[in-house]
Amino acid sequence: MSWFDVADSGLSGAGEVTLLSRDDVRKCLTNLDPVDIVRETLADHDRGLGLLPAEAYLRWENSRGAYTRSIGMPGAVRSAYGMKIINASVSNPARGLERAGGIGLCFDAETARITTIMEAGLLSAVRTAAVSAAGVDALGYGEAVSLAVVGCGAQGRMHAALLTERLPSLRNVALYDRSPEAARALAGALPGVSVRICPTAREAVSSAGIAVFTTTMDEGYAEPDWAAPGALLINVSLGDLTDTTFRDAAAVYVDDVDLVADNPRRPLGRLMAEGVFGRPGSEGPARPLDGTLGGVLTGRHRTPGVASPYVVLNPFGMGVLDVALYAAVSARARAEGLGTVVHLGS
Amino acid sequence: MSWFDVADSGLSGAGEVTLLSRDDVRKCLTNLDPVDIVRETLADHDRGLGLLPAEAYLRWENSRGAYTRSIGMPGAVRSAYGMKIINASVSNPARGLERAGGIGLCFDAETARITTIMEAGLLSAVRTAAVSAAGVDALGYGEAVSLAVVGCGAQGRMHAALLTERLPSLRNVALYDRSPEAARALAGALPGVSVRICPTAREAVSSAGIAVFTTTMDEGYAEPDWAAPGALLINVSLGDLTDTTFRDAAAVYVDDVDLVADNPRRPLGRLMAEGVFGRPGSEGPARPLDGTLGGVLTGRHRTPGVASPYVVLNPFGMGVLDVALYAAVSARARAEGLGTVVHLGS
Repeated sequence: MSWFDVADSGLSGAGEVTLLSRDDVRKCLTNLDPVDIVRETLADHDRGLGLLPAEAYLRWENSRGAYTRSIGMPGAVRSAYGMKIINASVSNPARGLERAGGIGLCFDAETARITTIMEAGLLSAVRTAAVSAAGVDALGYGEAVSLAVVGCGAQGRMHAALLTERLPSLRNVALYDRSPEAARALAGALPGVSVRICPTAREAVSSAGIAVFTTTMDEGYAEPDWAAPGALLINVSLGDLTDTTFRDAAAVYVDDVDLVADNPRRPLGRLMAEGVFGRPGSEGPARPLDGTLGGVLTGRHRTPGVASPYVVLNPFGMGVLDVALYAAVSARARAEGLGTVVHLGS
Repeated sequence: MSWFDVADSGLSGAGEVTLLSRDDVRKCLTNLDPVDIVRETLADHDRGLGLLPAEAYLRWENSRGAYTRSIGMPGAVRSAYGMKIINASVSNPARGLERAGGIGLCFDAETARITTIMEAGLLSAVRTAAVSAAGVDALGYGEAVSLAVVGCGAQGRMHAALLTERLPSLRNVALYDRSPEAARALAGALPGVSVRICPTAREAVSSAGIAVFTTTMDEGYAEPDWAAPGALLINVSLGDLTDTTFRDAAAVYVDDVDLVADNPRRPLGRLMAEGVFGRPGSEGPARPLDGTLGGVLTGRHRTPGVASPYVVLNPFGMGVLDVALYAAVSARARAEGLGTVVHLGS
């Protein structure tokens, strides 16, 4: 008997946890509407019903000198409590791995015990696309006929699939990727629309009512004159739009103002830090952001509708939306008996 | 085929993860010395080899109005990268549950992928006791004859068991707990020493060369005249020592100065915020802390040895120590073929 056996006899363990693989998550998703969940959570967050604490952020360089990191993002909304742990290394694609991966955790609201551990990569991509889809509706672009997707990786695929499914008016999709192969693979997978693969990002964007940027760029390159009149530009990646493109927009919307203000590593966060943009409704020399998606959904912020020259949506990514999805997936898994129960406790 | 199946075909999943239950962790621990691991990590951290970012902290009240929280604590040292997720509710004991529970994660240093998920409660208690044991050695109390343990819950049991095992000179152990039953249960489990159960905390502390406070108190009550001459008082709980007891100490040591300064909810953190204590080596009206355990181990900070009236050690809890233990446990599990491999990816 070791010293810690003596000590441990008074402890009770972590108990049972349900593990959900990506396959389990996928099965649960077939019975859920992630856009509805995201929309409700954005509105709840705007009403002050959610908790979105600062994230824990560990960064290092791996042996190739590549930026590598782990983020812990806790969040809560109504009875859903949980955390997203999403890790990434920019050298992963060169190793044949997705850049990012991780797990989602659900907590019991009463005891704080971890009840569910699920694969987080699929839901992370679903959440991001669902925010864009909710934004398209909320900002008045639900009748769009043409979509451009710049960057046909995981996020681009997810956005193209979700928006094609949800916008009945959509007829044309223009795709661009540095790798023509990635664009072709996505083109072949989109049903019911006319798909065009473009030789440049600019050409894809120039005819689109909605242009989604889902690249790996972290700097601006897309200029104001790329946009079709009245387009909605959705800036999902870290970069893409130049400072001028933000400045010349008819209106600029975000998901959470604090998230943007707290992240000067991204262009819009930097523009807030530099005093070019200010908080919605603020007075002074800074141009106020036009609002948040949650604020639009609750009626606190107005939108100009389809407006010229173009409207920008730049969500930074709210962990509380993932947590709301985890809770919905976890409830479906319980109802359908999905997942593997493991006993982590003593 | 659903829209996210279309989208998901380009994604690769989280892959394989090894799950370690508390039993697995216990088996790995029999072939490890946690005090050595903690000592090396404290020294590495002092040498600037570790990363200890700010933690993510989600707090709420459960339906009983009880303080409930989740903390995500990432950390890295040498080739060990990981995160501790430790959740707690103060109403858990009334439900027959340990107050705290959670999981520990190991990350691949190259890809940041989660490689191992383990039960974290046992290691959390082991880490805390190992810091105290390393502190006893480093501060010159390795020849102590008598030990007092105030609070005989999980942490008190772990401390009593580890210190009894590691201090060959130890002859007498005095125990106090509000619940005489908890004290009796621990008394019956300690081999090779004379154990006395005391009716008050003061009586237990008054004859002890080393007094460990492992209660659930978050306020001070132990006054300077409780301590035996030259005693080492180890403040593991949130409270216990009064402000005067900190002020009158011959020397005060911590684990990490930033952790203390950043947490004014705990007495010593508040005393730093109020300007009573300052950083080690600082000039000015504030009394400087005498050092960190890591600083003592690397020779950067001095200790007075066994000093009157008494010396205080007040570690706040460094996630990087848990991460170092996770890496060691994970390596043992691989070597011994322990744990359950699960496929979380698609």
